[in-house]
Amino acid sequence: MKYSIVLSTQPAQFQAATFKGDLQANLHRIASLGYEGVELAIRDPKQIDYEALEEQVRSCGLAVPAIGTGQAWGEEGLSFTDPDEAIRQKAIERILSHMEGASRFGAVIIIGLIRGIVKPGVAPQQAMSWLVEALRECSRAAEARNLRLALEPINRYETSLINTAAEGLELIEEVGADNFGLLLDTFHMNIEEVDIEASIRACGKHIFHFHVADSNRWYPGAGHLDFGSILRTLEGSGYTGWVSGEFLPKPDAATAAYAGIAHLRTKESVVSEGPEVSEVPEGPKVPKAPNTD
Amino acid sequence: MKYSIVLSTQPAQFQAATFKGDLQANLHRIASLGYEGVELAIRDPKQIDYEALEEQVRSCGLAVPAIGTGQAWGEEGLSFTDPDEAIRQKAIERILSHMEGASRFGAVIIIGLIRGIVKPGVAPQQAMSWLVEALRECSRAAEARNLRLALEPINRYETSLINTAAEGLELIEEVGADNFGLLLDTFHMNIEEVDIEASIRACGKHIFHFHVADSNRWYPGAGHLDFGSILRTLEGSGYTGWVSGEFLPKPDAATAAYAGIAHLRTKESVVSEGPEVSEVPEGPKVPKAPNTD
Repeated sequence: MKYSIVLSTQPAQFQAATFKGDLQANLHRIASLGYEGVELAIRDPKQIDYEALEEQVRSCGLAVPAIGTGQAWGEEGLSFTDPDEAIRQKAIERILSHMEGASRFGAVIIIGLIRGIVKPGVAPQQAMSWLVEALRECSRAAEARNLRLALEPINRYETSLINTAAEGLELIEEVGADNFGLLLDTFHMNIEEVDIEASIRACGKHIFHFHVADSNRWYPGAGHLDFGSILRTLEGSGYTGWVSGEFLPKPDAATAAYAGIAHLRTKESVVSEGPEVSEVPEGPKVPKAPNTD
Repeated sequence: MKYSIVLSTQPAQFQAATFKGDLQANLHRIASLGYEGVELAIRDPKQIDYEALEEQVRSCGLAVPAIGTGQAWGEEGLSFTDPDEAIRQKAIERILSHMEGASRFGAVIIIGLIRGIVKPGVAPQQAMSWLVEALRECSRAAEARNLRLALEPINRYETSLINTAAEGLELIEEVGADNFGLLLDTFHMNIEEVDIEASIRACGKHIFHFHVADSNRWYPGAGHLDFGSILRTLEGSGYTGWVSGEFLPKPDAATAAYAGIAHLRTKESVVSEGPEVSEVPEGPKVPKAPNTD
């Protein structure tokens, strides 16, 4: 498997971007931990010097398999399904503005939270129709540049639009573009899917990108998901893309990134070429009973 | 195991109360499905005629193992941790007002969402200190009536106060009352616990009540939790209380209630005395790949 990890190119509120802050230092760190790629979370491409960014990324020997776009929702409220047409239009333009950067890196463009939610006063069918319209427009523009878009089913607490793989597959039929597919994320799947492996198999060739985090959104190995089974199923479904870490920077970003890739490599039974395990990282708290006798 | 299920005594927004609406009809239905108890969700005891309620419940042969109190948060915004002292006081009084009803039924009083969240502008330590203070006051009052309180760790999306069993156990030490314990809920545990079974074992005698819902909050059997292992662990930890269904009324309340208890009974390998399985209920959607060739 080829592993990448999410890096935010600018300060952001989103908690599950593992790395934030000093770009160059973080790129070096990511490469030194054994990752071959970095998934860039970019709020606004206008603020990015892609020439310099590409040089920094390449100098660390990293690929950029995907570009995350959700900060435009989190920080600016842009979405495909806002009742305000101007905001919907701005969201579409924002996605179109990512295409130059995506072309440069050969990256998939992620449609995460920028799809929006069903806002109060909006009929669900209306929101879905705006969503399909926006995705068709973006997919057409992406096709002209030979790019792909991947929509991420996200758990019910973060959006009311497309929570499950089944809903994602229905949306693919509706949009009807070969370059529009899905990004599956194990943290969201743990909450939403009846059977994680069955959903991976059902999505098959429609999986354009894959996120890993454990059941508690910590690094793989810190929760109760069976990544051996998940990676085998993913491989068995014909997926040849990247497995990208999007998890909380806990206990800190470097420890999480290191422990995550170490766990995944053990699970796929490939000898690690990363640094040797010197000590077991401090995982999330496992309860001990208090003495109240 | 003794099984109960959540019933809202009045119309409510909370989506995971399986039964809402006509009380008498629902009590009959619950009993006919093989449940021996009903967990009553009550917003305000002042609006309840307990004499009549007890008669209705007893006439169906049902016990009331627990009383849920979270609607006072959902519908009225009462909480132990609101920055407004008057609201905190009202929340405490609301819990005290549940004690007469709880005594009547010998029910555990549940402290769910009424504990509140860390509100903007409030320091987490301050919120915790209000919480501990309120729980001590309520536990003292409960002790005088020989009643027990059970706090439910709830996942991060619904509250920022006490998400995990470990945090619950720390709180127990802090509160320091023998009649204050925990309510564990499998839906929340699937998101928050590193290892569900290990957390059940660690909580042991501090488990005063237990909620079941599958990983997707549908009835047990509709998701990917291993209820055989969960029930065995719960029994092995010495728990002799109730297993109470708190899940979404999907595809409808009666089907969910029926399918849930049938699944749990199969898993604990006890011969069902409930109605025979005539047909497999319609579960949540498992994806089928669209044909986009």
